[in-house]
Amino acid sequence: MTPNALNGGEAPFPEFHSVYIDPVSWQHWRRTGEFRDGTVLAKELVTLISTDAHPDGSTDQVSGRGYFMDNFAGFEIAYKSAKHFPDEPGNWAYFSFGHHTPPYAAATKKLPTETCNACHGENAAQDYVFIQFYPVLRAARAAEAVN
Amino acid sequence: MTPNALNGGEAPFPEFHSVYIDPVSWQHWRRTGEFRDGTVLAKELVTLISTDAHPDGSTDQVSGRGYFMDNFAGFEIAYKSAKHFPDEPGNWAYFSFGHHTPPYAAATKKLPTETCNACHGENAAQDYVFIQFYPVLRAARAAEAVN
Repeated sequence: MTPNALNGGEAPFPEFHSVYIDPVSWQHWRRTGEFRDGTVLAKELVTLISTDAHPDGSTDQVSGRGYFMDNFAGFEIAYKSAKHFPDEPGNWAYFSFGHHTPPYAAATKKLPTETCNACHGENAAQDYVFIQFYPVLRAARAAEAVN
Repeated sequence: MTPNALNGGEAPFPEFHSVYIDPVSWQHWRRTGEFRDGTVLAKELVTLISTDAHPDGSTDQVSGRGYFMDNFAGFEIAYKSAKHFPDEPGNWAYFSFGHHTPPYAAATKKLPTETCNACHGENAAQDYVFIQFYPVLRAARAAEAVN
């Protein structure tokens, strides 16, 4: 979560990210530690509560000063498919169904490779996915590896 | 998420919270907008990446300056049950299975009412649950209410 207020007023990704994986690919990940062909990752963007915000974008709530989820602000998909995206790096294609309050688009075209995939390829810890920020994935893989 | 660095070095809840609801109670919530008797909410605590942190606790990653999940640091449960907790406000009892790195305790006793329930009762937006910070719950309730 990278608030606008900490990024010169205009962060590339100013919202919270809630990231989900489809159940079949999750089971595959647990067994193998790999994203199977067909994996779908869904990202829900959620704005920060901003009423009475401090200069750094944080707000005071009963639990303390910090950053809190407010409302949905976008929905994106990453889809790994050798059949559908043979020319994309890692066979990953990226889609945005709208970066705004719901409702989102019912359908959309894939984004140009350089929009998402280039940065994912250079910086993501495994197969174009930023698992360095996803403790659930890392822990599940480690737990299975013990067996 | 309330970083220590924004709370005098010692926040009551310095970690990210990932909060889950059991599937049966989720379906009930979608239909009714209420937490059924038997609802279990599970809270996973996740530390912030702190390497090379700024004074406010944020770090610089490829997506910008902000706060990023690092590792599991605790596991807690809230359980609403009139049968088991007839004397607890709202019949909610709270449990901590450890506020540290895994593994967590296999079993634990409920916390004293004043530890959690008092603040939840005074400040949570609905039935001792802080739905003001949970857009998924609010959106699901609103969607069903349209029908």
